Amino acid sequence: MVIVGELINTSRKAISEAVDNKNAQVIQQVALEQVEAGATYIDVNCGNKVFDEVENMRWLVNTVQEAVKVPLCIDSPNPLALAAGLELVKYGTPMINSITDESSRFEAIIPLVQKYKAKIVALCMDDTGMPDTAADRIRVVKSLHAKLTAAGVKDDDIYFDPLVKPVSSVGTAGVEVLETIKLIKEQYPQVHFMCGLSNVSYGLPNRKYLNSLFVALTMAVGMDGYILNPTDKSMMGLIYAAKTLLGQDEYCMGYIKAHRKGFY
Amino acid sequence: MVIVGELINTSRKAISEAVDNKNAQVIQQVALEQVEAGATYIDVNCGNKVFDEVENMRWLVNTVQEAVKVPLCIDSPNPLALAAGLELVKYGTPMINSITDESSRFEAIIPLVQKYKAKIVALCMDDTGMPDTAADRIRVVKSLHAKLTAAGVKDDDIYFDPLVKPVSSVGTAGVEVLETIKLIKEQYPQVHFMCGLSNVSYGLPNRKYLNSLFVALTMAVGMDGYILNPTDKSMMGLIYAAKTLLGQDEYCMGYIKAHRKGFY
Repeated sequence: MVIVGELINTSRKAISEAVDNKNAQVIQQVALEQVEAGATYIDVNCGNKVFDEVENMRWLVNTVQEAVKVPLCIDSPNPLALAAGLELVKYGTPMINSITDESSRFEAIIPLVQKYKAKIVALCMDDTGMPDTAADRIRVVKSLHAKLTAAGVKDDDIYFDPLVKPVSSVGTAGVEVLETIKLIKEQYPQVHFMCGLSNVSYGLPNRKYLNSLFVALTMAVGMDGYILNPTDKSMMGLIYAAKTLLGQDEYCMGYIKAHRKGFY
Repeated sequence: MVIVGELINTSRKAISEAVDNKNAQVIQQVALEQVEAGATYIDVNCGNKVFDEVENMRWLVNTVQEAVKVPLCIDSPNPLALAAGLELVKYGTPMINSITDESSRFEAIIPLVQKYKAKIVALCMDDTGMPDTAADRIRVVKSLHAKLTAAGVKDDDIYFDPLVKPVSSVGTAGVEVLETIKLIKEQYPQVHFMCGLSNVSYGLPNRKYLNSLFVALTMAVGMDGYILNPTDKSMMGLIYAAKTLLGQDEYCMGYIKAHRKGFY
């Protein structure tokens, strides 16, 4: 399972200020805490610094890599910022977050995927907009998979994000995501998955509870990657427990260790 | 979803004593609390009263039905006790817990299923013993389904129990259950499911947490019936939340009500 630590994102006030002040210590502390908590990738996103995103991305990538030696997930809709970040990645295979089947975005980002042999988060979205049903998503998945394959990207490097929408606005939003995962796994058993979690609970009380429960529901049908806050013990505890119940935790040692550390 | 309240069972000390003393008030209180907490069936089990199970079953069934007007799940390996309980059921369609594909047990119990047009919990077990893999279970499911159908039992009245074993002894025990549910749903989309939960966590710390998480994992693949303690707010809260995420809770009202009642 891939856990992408989501905390280094300038949409968060503390990170935004640290980037503005070039306070490396704050950034490095957050990177280190996420790795210690179990992140396998560190996401780096300064997408709201629209006027100097490229410079900030360079500084962030260098700063993070002075603290931790894990692969990075370079996260931006801006191909120039992605290119700037990818050029500096030192450890492991980088991940790009994200490509879509929108034609201009696909064309701009696929050369970077090829150049860096990067892992790629592929959103189930095209020029017609956000999908509603599993069938809508699978149509995009098929198109994206064909184009990525034609560009030489291996299934093992593709992370489909089914795009999770709020169940408070469309009651079937959760179940359509589960159905999408099942259909993708049937057709492309070697590809991976990635998703963010907070959308599903939008507009409802006690959102953290719903978000972590949605992790369990998606793990049950084969989801194997999440962008989340790995320092959230209740979330990570649930993942350890679900792995145990799903036979992905030899001798239940991950669960037992998490229990000893007080995660439950 | 079917929730069978499991608390009226003489393996529990308080219930055993109440049955010995014919203390109707204790039994009726437990029946009422379970119905108020959301049980759709009340399980009645006095299987450890081996010398007077039939008499005790009669007393329990009458006593419970003086307090609540919900259908009962008559629970015993003993056909005589089942017959005694079923004869007295007044409200709705009774459930029999359980039949198996062990030949003597099947032959003894199927006439009761037919006579009372009862819903039947069918354990994935035959004369060869407890199954390990999903393939073992599906073999039993096919045999049981053919025999039940030949006996005139409708798919909608069959509740397959995949038999949950501890993940601490066989790491794949949980995932084999999920696989069994998926396979049964593919082949017999109209049948239902039923399972107990406590086995899965045997030998591990913090069992309630694992048990309730296993409910979420099984719900994600289509499990629609559980034998459990409905007065356990954390368990029922999880079920309400999972139903919301799975599109089974119109306008999320069940979840919002449970939240207002302090389930989370």
